[in-house]
Amino acid sequence: MAHITLGPGSEFDLVRALLARWGTLAEGTGDDAAIVDVPAGEKLVVSTDSSVEFVHFKREWLTAQEIGYRAAASAVSDLAAMGATPLGMTVAMTLPDAWRPQALELADGMAELARATGMRIIGGDLTSGATLTITVTVLGAARSEQLLRRDGAVAGQVVFVTGRFGGPGAAVRALSRDETPAAEHRQRFAHPVPRIREAIWLAAEGATAAVDCSDGLVADAAHLAAASDRRLVLDLDQLTLVDGVTEVEGASSGEEYELVVTGPASLDTDRFAREFGVPLTAVGRVEIAPATGPDVIVLYDGRVITPPTGHDHFRT
Amino acid sequence: MAHITLGPGSEFDLVRALLARWGTLAEGTGDDAAIVDVPAGEKLVVSTDSSVEFVHFKREWLTAQEIGYRAAASAVSDLAAMGATPLGMTVAMTLPDAWRPQALELADGMAELARATGMRIIGGDLTSGATLTITVTVLGAARSEQLLRRDGAVAGQVVFVTGRFGGPGAAVRALSRDETPAAEHRQRFAHPVPRIREAIWLAAEGATAAVDCSDGLVADAAHLAAASDRRLVLDLDQLTLVDGVTEVEGASSGEEYELVVTGPASLDTDRFAREFGVPLTAVGRVEIAPATGPDVIVLYDGRVITPPTGHDHFRT
Repeated sequence: MAHITLGPGSEFDLVRALLARWGTLAEGTGDDAAIVDVPAGEKLVVSTDSSVEFVHFKREWLTAQEIGYRAAASAVSDLAAMGATPLGMTVAMTLPDAWRPQALELADGMAELARATGMRIIGGDLTSGATLTITVTVLGAARSEQLLRRDGAVAGQVVFVTGRFGGPGAAVRALSRDETPAAEHRQRFAHPVPRIREAIWLAAEGATAAVDCSDGLVADAAHLAAASDRRLVLDLDQLTLVDGVTEVEGASSGEEYELVVTGPASLDTDRFAREFGVPLTAVGRVEIAPATGPDVIVLYDGRVITPPTGHDHFRT
Repeated sequence: MAHITLGPGSEFDLVRALLARWGTLAEGTGDDAAIVDVPAGEKLVVSTDSSVEFVHFKREWLTAQEIGYRAAASAVSDLAAMGATPLGMTVAMTLPDAWRPQALELADGMAELARATGMRIIGGDLTSGATLTITVTVLGAARSEQLLRRDGAVAGQVVFVTGRFGGPGAAVRALSRDETPAAEHRQRFAHPVPRIREAIWLAAEGATAAVDCSDGLVADAAHLAAASDRRLVLDLDQLTLVDGVTEVEGASSGEEYELVVTGPASLDTDRFAREFGVPLTAVGRVEIAPATGPDVIVLYDGRVITPPTGHDHFRT
């Protein structure tokens, strides 16, 4: 179906320009709402995520395309954390006048992520306003038995993580000091890759629970432990890191968009690495919940340490 | 299912407070994404809508509960415009520090709308930031043949509108002059009612196209006409108005959230009014698109007039 024709007005001119830029990615938009087919026998999976200037990013740190890409990637990463296959996304954007010249570049970043994950851009809302805000709502689908729920951890499982940790945290530390981050760190910060295919593979291989690391490994592991009513014991000495960061930095770096997964010890980490070109690393185990004490125990250099904290927008 | 337990942190404390306030309305939230059942044989219908302080509302004009209610109502109205039955909504909110004391009141307004339309609040994202922004994404479902598409108008149909026009525009005019709006006008502005049940009834009775009046009757009729490649002829003398406004004011008042519908002349407007307690009014007809000339012809006092314009966030 072609784009539905929009009416007159300068707001619609900008919408038209965005739709033209997205081309076939956004076919069918323009009605009051988008119409989506959910595969028969599958559950719909929905998540929404906002990226706000000055809170989630600074204009000087990223190109407009990277800002658009990251806004979409952070939302799509929630589908990965459920083991869902993406169906489509909606984009609500508050676009201040100062950002209007970059509108198409922002759109290019969203399109880059949409193409990379096989999604369509099925609708949106464009408004003026004082602060650049991009809210992406993602829709996916999965069979019920393949969902990686946050409350699905089972005592005796191994805790795995995808990817190499510490890049986004190191990049932000450098940028905050007006230094140029290492190329690998900047790439991990500016161009996170939602682990969609990896999650579907892990679910098929017997993983039962997952979260994505948006707040930092230890912080997100604590969410999974609390939801599952289990204790997670994490050994930071096992963590796979980017170059030039410590284990503690790696475990507290936010916006990694890697997955923390619980599954059988038999998961074939070598095959995973060959298949996807990123490591899958066993970093801990799931235990029954203690009567008292923390949900997460962190080991480092053979000792129990105070868990490094994650990112919290509302910490004062 | 109970709420999934959230981890520690002040952001999560506020999320917990919101979830507690919503109670059973928000049961099942807390995972990376929400899981939704779409009824077998039905299409998923999705729309997203942002409400931004200083753009869509002013704090002095509305209570926090009304702001929360309206943000959700404007999104749900898009489901009505499709003839869809609501399934659930996600809420992404940027909450400046100055608004934090009103967070639960905002939540109460969203809950009021959710209860009134039989929806659950299935997920969300809460962030700090400089400008109060509420982005609501709504999910609904409908059988394909019952969808009221914007491009579904057929030459020979009658154009109907639900409700009484002009209230929100009159309220905003008064508020902009620091005057107290008439009670009826304020109520129509502060408490719009998405026409969900009405739309499902209209689709069942043979209506084929609809839009909701967020930009104003004539402006939204133009969108429908353009999408359908038909001409709409509207006779403002037929329009049902709130007290104290002119026909031209009623036809250009934005944020009405009434429906413009095309359907057979036989639609029983009396039965509609008895069933729903709001009028259904024939205000025009659908014609074949002209080779040249406007998509919408507006008659007033027996003459063709220049169409009143609607609301456009990006008009400069």
